[in-house]
Amino acid sequence: MPEIAQLIETHLSSYCAFGNPGSLHRLGVSAMESYSNSRRRVASVLGAQSEEIIFTSGGTESINFAIRGYLEANPRKGKHVISTRTEHKATLAVLDYLSNHGHEVTYIGVDSAGEPNWLEVESAIRPDTALLTFTHVNNETGAILPVSKLVDIRNRINRSAVIHLDCVQSLGKLPLRPSKDGVELVSMSGHKIHAVKGVGAIYIKSGIRMQPLIIGGGQQGGLRSGTESTFLAEAFALALEKSYEQSDAAYLKLTHIHNDVSSVIQSFGGVILSPENGSKYILNAALPMFEAETLLHALEEHDIFISTVSACASKNKKASHVLAAMGIDKSLSRSAVRISFSRFSQAEDIEQINKALGEAIKRYAL
Amino acid sequence: MPEIAQLIETHLSSYCAFGNPGSLHRLGVSAMESYSNSRRRVASVLGAQSEEIIFTSGGTESINFAIRGYLEANPRKGKHVISTRTEHKATLAVLDYLSNHGHEVTYIGVDSAGEPNWLEVESAIRPDTALLTFTHVNNETGAILPVSKLVDIRNRINRSAVIHLDCVQSLGKLPLRPSKDGVELVSMSGHKIHAVKGVGAIYIKSGIRMQPLIIGGGQQGGLRSGTESTFLAEAFALALEKSYEQSDAAYLKLTHIHNDVSSVIQSFGGVILSPENGSKYILNAALPMFEAETLLHALEEHDIFISTVSACASKNKKASHVLAAMGIDKSLSRSAVRISFSRFSQAEDIEQINKALGEAIKRYAL
Repeated sequence: MPEIAQLIETHLSSYCAFGNPGSLHRLGVSAMESYSNSRRRVASVLGAQSEEIIFTSGGTESINFAIRGYLEANPRKGKHVISTRTEHKATLAVLDYLSNHGHEVTYIGVDSAGEPNWLEVESAIRPDTALLTFTHVNNETGAILPVSKLVDIRNRINRSAVIHLDCVQSLGKLPLRPSKDGVELVSMSGHKIHAVKGVGAIYIKSGIRMQPLIIGGGQQGGLRSGTESTFLAEAFALALEKSYEQSDAAYLKLTHIHNDVSSVIQSFGGVILSPENGSKYILNAALPMFEAETLLHALEEHDIFISTVSACASKNKKASHVLAAMGIDKSLSRSAVRISFSRFSQAEDIEQINKALGEAIKRYAL
Repeated sequence: MPEIAQLIETHLSSYCAFGNPGSLHRLGVSAMESYSNSRRRVASVLGAQSEEIIFTSGGTESINFAIRGYLEANPRKGKHVISTRTEHKATLAVLDYLSNHGHEVTYIGVDSAGEPNWLEVESAIRPDTALLTFTHVNNETGAILPVSKLVDIRNRINRSAVIHLDCVQSLGKLPLRPSKDGVELVSMSGHKIHAVKGVGAIYIKSGIRMQPLIIGGGQQGGLRSGTESTFLAEAFALALEKSYEQSDAAYLKLTHIHNDVSSVIQSFGGVILSPENGSKYILNAALPMFEAETLLHALEEHDIFISTVSACASKNKKASHVLAAMGIDKSLSRSAVRISFSRFSQAEDIEQINKALGEAIKRYAL
């Protein structure tokens, strides 16, 4: 995003780039003002208080911190955690670690649209359930979690259980007001909203106790030590504001693009795996005449860059754990690709995909 | 540093900024090549192998990971750790945490020059000593650890104990070859070598098992998950190369500047607290006619930016724990300030400090 490049350029060529927000002199003071201002701006977009926003190095750190930090700081709330098998690897890895370190995790089943089985959620919540960790928008399929359903059930059965929402894919795209929505912890990533790679944030509801993941100088209220990076925080704040300023218009535009690309894919015999009511930013589809990776490479010849499963897991060549949890047949899942849209996507992209798919089928189809 | 601003500018305006190193298409492949290349460049400067370098979000994360990651992955090596009271808050906070979680920490005393008492080290090492964690160059005084002494004693008494060196202040300034030096873990920070805030690295000797601090997508050989930030890694690699290219010349220049500024301070009745054989990048001195913070503000009127204790701890207004460990009288320590030099410091700075101190004494001295 040009505004981000501009911001960083200005920052790095200015005097204040050298200020350490922890220093007492005016370079430090102005760095700290910029940092506090970034927190305030992020908080304002999310309807939160400044102190509830902590900057991290990215979505993965935020997720690690949210889950482990809450459980470690609140051992008396219980050792039981509830989640699904369709979470991002960051969450699954942390849950796996916890399972090996004295915690018990219940994984809720999802239906073919990726929606959790609510009866299972109801019966899973126990008095010793400390945490429910769910994804707001699934990174592979775009399935949207009906957050209010989860919150209602939690409120009814065990109000002291805390909800962590992985909002890496929904931030800047879907409305998000943690406090109003009734969730206590929210993980966010900067590069998914066109900031830069290397910054993220976490929302921690005021009053929730957390054991920091990274300790030391006591920065950010002691919750995340390490010299504060003013330019990364500013990049995050700016990217977040820009995303939400344009999110309504983007959603409208992407609804058309998403539908049209879906039709194109179906016209070539493809199967749409994303749920109908999912996020319009993500389209998961299988063209059974291709292995996913073949299609990926065929499309990149046309400067169309798509993914097999998630980038984080693409290299182990396993079939998607998300599609497996949704009960998608393995042979179909091997052909599944994920097309990501952004607010910078254009209607012209549809014709481009149409053309590229036509040629790919002629040249590479099984 | 202008080269860093240039690098980031180029990066952010280029196509490859969008590539996720985990993706299979060519944007991803080129991002991964850039990332691997940064690792190789850092490794090459340190005489290490590529796989031994892991990028982090900064020095504090590296220190947390080094200490906790080693102990957690190697429980059979013992629960005993050796360190000093003059470590950075990041280390002290982690050691404090460990003390409350089943580990035992022995703190070695230091003399008035900040050097550890070697007899104490000898008698502290036990069969169940898993880790020795020491700072290469002290961030407040510039005291240099004679690494070879530490390594020799460890090798003699318990070869299986691992050494972690906090090299945040020595990187790019003093020669550092972890493998040749005989240390297994090294923590590094980007912004201290004029990269940017928000990036750091850790050296992990090949064969040393570590429990990652941040888990998830399995990036960086599973040792540090989270989408790799290519531009931060490149900034780190470039800054490191530039630092070492110029470190010999810088050291020579700074030896003069350090000596001359010391003389100026003494001519005003100041006391030098840095050890004589310390790093020339740091000068700790007390001017008893000032509270440290008064002097700090008096000098910033002249665009001279100095610190009381470390920036990370400046706001709690406590006297320096480092100076206390060195046996410096508390009344002197309350006046202690830290002047940091860099390879960009100039001989003209000496006259500037002379003038500023003269005026400060006229206007603000007690």
